[in-house]
Amino acid sequence: MRNSKNNIKKPAGRKKGLAPAEGPNVDSIRHSISHIVALATMEKFPKAKLGIGPTIENGFYYDFGLKEITDENLKSIEGRSRELLKQGLKFKKEIVTPAEAKKIFKDQPFKLELIDELKKQKKTISIYKTYDKSPKDPLFIDLCAGPHVKSTSEIDPEAFKLTSIAGAYWKGDEKNPMLQRIYGLAFASKKALNDYLVVQAEAEKRDHRKLGAELELFMISDEVGQGLPLFLPKGSRLRHEIMTFALNTYLKNGYEMVTTPHIGSQKLWDRSGHTGFYKDSMYAPFGIEGENYLLKPMNCPLHIQLYKSKPRSYRDLPIRWTEMGTVYRYERSGTLHGLTRVRGFTQDDAHIFCTPEQIEDEVKKALKLTIYILGTFGFRDLEMNLSVRDPKKKGDFIGGDKDWAMAEKALRLAMEEMRFKDFAYDVGGAAFYGPKIDIKVSDAIGRKWQLSTIQFDFNEPARFDMAYTDDKGKEKRPLMVHRALLGSLERFMGVYIEHVAGAFPVWIAPVQAAIIPISEKFNRYAKDLEEKLMAEDIRTELYSSAETLGRRIRAAEMQKIPYILIVGEAEMKSNTVSVRKRGEGDLGAKPVDAFLQNLKQEIKNRK
Amino acid sequence: MRNSKNNIKKPAGRKKGLAPAEGPNVDSIRHSISHIVALATMEKFPKAKLGIGPTIENGFYYDFGLKEITDENLKSIEGRSRELLKQGLKFKKEIVTPAEAKKIFKDQPFKLELIDELKKQKKTISIYKTYDKSPKDPLFIDLCAGPHVKSTSEIDPEAFKLTSIAGAYWKGDEKNPMLQRIYGLAFASKKALNDYLVVQAEAEKRDHRKLGAELELFMISDEVGQGLPLFLPKGSRLRHEIMTFALNTYLKNGYEMVTTPHIGSQKLWDRSGHTGFYKDSMYAPFGIEGENYLLKPMNCPLHIQLYKSKPRSYRDLPIRWTEMGTVYRYERSGTLHGLTRVRGFTQDDAHIFCTPEQIEDEVKKALKLTIYILGTFGFRDLEMNLSVRDPKKKGDFIGGDKDWAMAEKALRLAMEEMRFKDFAYDVGGAAFYGPKIDIKVSDAIGRKWQLSTIQFDFNEPARFDMAYTDDKGKEKRPLMVHRALLGSLERFMGVYIEHVAGAFPVWIAPVQAAIIPISEKFNRYAKDLEEKLMAEDIRTELYSSAETLGRRIRAAEMQKIPYILIVGEAEMKSNTVSVRKRGEGDLGAKPVDAFLQNLKQEIKNRK
Repeated sequence: MRNSKNNIKKPAGRKKGLAPAEGPNVDSIRHSISHIVALATMEKFPKAKLGIGPTIENGFYYDFGLKEITDENLKSIEGRSRELLKQGLKFKKEIVTPAEAKKIFKDQPFKLELIDELKKQKKTISIYKTYDKSPKDPLFIDLCAGPHVKSTSEIDPEAFKLTSIAGAYWKGDEKNPMLQRIYGLAFASKKALNDYLVVQAEAEKRDHRKLGAELELFMISDEVGQGLPLFLPKGSRLRHEIMTFALNTYLKNGYEMVTTPHIGSQKLWDRSGHTGFYKDSMYAPFGIEGENYLLKPMNCPLHIQLYKSKPRSYRDLPIRWTEMGTVYRYERSGTLHGLTRVRGFTQDDAHIFCTPEQIEDEVKKALKLTIYILGTFGFRDLEMNLSVRDPKKKGDFIGGDKDWAMAEKALRLAMEEMRFKDFAYDVGGAAFYGPKIDIKVSDAIGRKWQLSTIQFDFNEPARFDMAYTDDKGKEKRPLMVHRALLGSLERFMGVYIEHVAGAFPVWIAPVQAAIIPISEKFNRYAKDLEEKLMAEDIRTELYSSAETLGRRIRAAEMQKIPYILIVGEAEMKSNTVSVRKRGEGDLGAKPVDAFLQNLKQEIKNRK
Repeated sequence: MRNSKNNIKKPAGRKKGLAPAEGPNVDSIRHSISHIVALATMEKFPKAKLGIGPTIENGFYYDFGLKEITDENLKSIEGRSRELLKQGLKFKKEIVTPAEAKKIFKDQPFKLELIDELKKQKKTISIYKTYDKSPKDPLFIDLCAGPHVKSTSEIDPEAFKLTSIAGAYWKGDEKNPMLQRIYGLAFASKKALNDYLVVQAEAEKRDHRKLGAELELFMISDEVGQGLPLFLPKGSRLRHEIMTFALNTYLKNGYEMVTTPHIGSQKLWDRSGHTGFYKDSMYAPFGIEGENYLLKPMNCPLHIQLYKSKPRSYRDLPIRWTEMGTVYRYERSGTLHGLTRVRGFTQDDAHIFCTPEQIEDEVKKALKLTIYILGTFGFRDLEMNLSVRDPKKKGDFIGGDKDWAMAEKALRLAMEEMRFKDFAYDVGGAAFYGPKIDIKVSDAIGRKWQLSTIQFDFNEPARFDMAYTDDKGKEKRPLMVHRALLGSLERFMGVYIEHVAGAFPVWIAPVQAAIIPISEKFNRYAKDLEEKLMAEDIRTELYSSAETLGRRIRAAEMQKIPYILIVGEAEMKSNTVSVRKRGEGDLGAKPVDAFLQNLKQEIKNRK
């Protein structure tokens, strides 16, 4: 739903393929190509049983009850599909009865199963015919709700590509037969496809799992468990520097730190409601002396315990408590991915408890802080999304009308006053416990990542019967806001590694300077230099092995260390260093102190 | 066992009550008084069934099958016991057969149970008679292995005190009947008792649980679970400052940081051996997709995974990896105590992997670091304990003779070279997996606390098949040393709070300066001052409420804030602050900048 008053745009990707008015919807294009690919496949394998063929992000897939499709077949199916596309084949939708549908798909057991389901659900059954001359003589019929293009002449035959074959269980259930799935990319134009492929190639180079291994940042160990990254010294240092920067920024902005355990009694999670509404994301309980305990999936109920450690007055508010809190959430092993999808992660979490009078200002401050924090890491292209309650479905949300109106207004006003005129407004997208702002960043190659979130919570303050005394001595319920600006440190690291392609700015780089003596004779000078830099808290690494100078320089470059300092006779005599700066090359010899001053300034400026 | 060559003293408390040669052993005194107290109790409650009456630290207890002992009775039993002690009653030991013993204790069911056990174990049964004139006419007989004093005339009747009555299950098993336990303190002299009581009173004042609440440092929540402290802002800050100081010190001393998850697959713990030898300290497993996972009780197997992430050469060693690692270990709820005995705690953990040639130097460095770290917190009176294998019981320890000889030698030489001539040598006290050094500190009121540990491990490197390539290209097993210098951050905090009685030195204090405007008129100046201090990373708190000046000063004093800065007209006009220093009182007005420079110096010096 568009909020016309505020010139709000729908964020890209929210609803796939909203195309310009003059051309067909890219979703229709993708869907139509999937039918053409099925047609081409059926030509080659006439006995293939058809599964489903939906659109997905950037393309489509089609499942076939086959075992024999090879990579070579894929090439020929792609070629044949392209020929078919060029023939200007047409699509026609027809509504049929279940009986008619069953007759059409009598040899297609998977389709028959789907027809039975549609019948049971009393849904309209439609088919799409693909034909050349007349719909009475179709080349291909699929059970399908559409939409499709009218003719393949609307489709650029060069704007699609079949990418891979994979095994997939029918309906994703491993008890069902395994089918073969053909994946394809499809776009509105060849240029769009190429742009996508360029980004993909770049993304592969930047893959944080690959860079994580090359730069010795982290590892996943099967012996420890999937989705539980272990950080090697450089990754641990990077994570620590990110965490320290965020924490110190929060402390300087009126937050206080708190620390809470990683486990809590089930009593706590029952009271907060997590064992109800958040059960699927939590791990199984384990007993201690007859009482069930659970790994924490969130920090909030623990912060509420701290709030309740003494009576609170309006004078104590706002309370802003931050914790770099490690939480554990269930993810299926199939969905785990490097650092960006894990089972245990550390949030730069905080909870704000305040009065209704303070809330707008608090949201504004949190938004400002988000912009500052993300901007410091070079994320300046932000996409804001304000999710509110669907007023037609009040029953799906807890909390009173007045609370929702006040919270939604506070969020909206804060965003407007912060001049985010360009935010998306998602009616019905709120959490059941309150409205929220989500913030996505665009990385260096244009991909979007959701990082920050600022969420109201009407659930927990009520469940834990939280209170403060107002200036008239009356007991009131405080407002509660959850906020995490980097989101998860692990996920943020994954995104950030890809954003900078592992070439971390000097202020945050795990190793800021490599020192390379040109031969053993200068190891002493190199060591002294290292100590001098370390005394100034510069993170250095000495490359004084028996390897050749060239190999050591190459090794330091491969590690993407921002500064490589080479020292030999001339440097020792003149108390200088020969400086190579990543991305800029040889800067020549610099006096040690001058170099150090510049470096410290660069670090201070977080450039 | 004493190692005469090295002038080693047995640490106090290792074996209780080694008294000077001329007087009776304090253990005999305590034990004898427990019999006299039992005699006095039997006089008052002739039908009481006798449980056991052993010595404990600082005294003794005696259990009775009674329900009727009141606090008043306790007073009168104490008085009567004192009278009896003054009568010069004598003790005589006799060896008896099980049949004789059963006859003597025919009315004492608990004693009969003990006799049966002794008989089953084929142990000698002895009794002690307490008598006035003749052992043939005893006043009291107890089943007892002794030793006792010969006569109560050897006991100072003013050197004991009954302290409390508590319920205690027979043999500590809740399925058995509940008895009444009388606790008593007893020492060799009245002075020793009084000294103890003074320390106890002081200890009560310093109790970190009490101070933890008063200074708003931490809380325990029943809803979260026992033994799982939650840190309020000031406690979290204190913990963070302790952690940051330790971590930065390690990083400056050649350590690198690593970060690992709090849970790991049971596969890992099976391989490390923890599910075998450490099972009782671990929590129950929980399943994730059919695989068992466990909360980590130690960080070591995870650090080993990092070690094994790539092949290691002798050039990579020594590796020193530190992690502020939160571990969870089972403790019975009855043994939990504030921060000093908890179920989840964070170790300032590190593992050193090195070659045999490096080990002595590594141990020495770790010892030096221990002395520096503990000394910075004001713990300078250290007691060192070197625990080695019992060469007669080699089967109880894993690892070869050569390894043990090398490791024990390295530890001993390091301690000698560090001039710890005065360390205790505990034969047989080693862990099954390697020898170790434990270090105890004495706190401000003379109590000893074990904090630091440096331990060899021959178990895990073998179990995980760890290796490095030596300079001849041969595969070798690295040595592995566990070390934690503060031990557990939580426990350390508990000890440290009691050591300084909550009056933290300014460098580590959660709030370093309180700013108090004398009236609202000076809130602006106070706020500016706060910002100036905060810009210099001084942790400040503004006391600008509507309370009277006196109450606000008192409140800041109660919080034991090192500096209280009072500002009014004069201060504002002259750009000064009136400084009150904790423990020193009013220092008068100081120019803001001069005060700030002094304060920063004091913080830098960690005074």
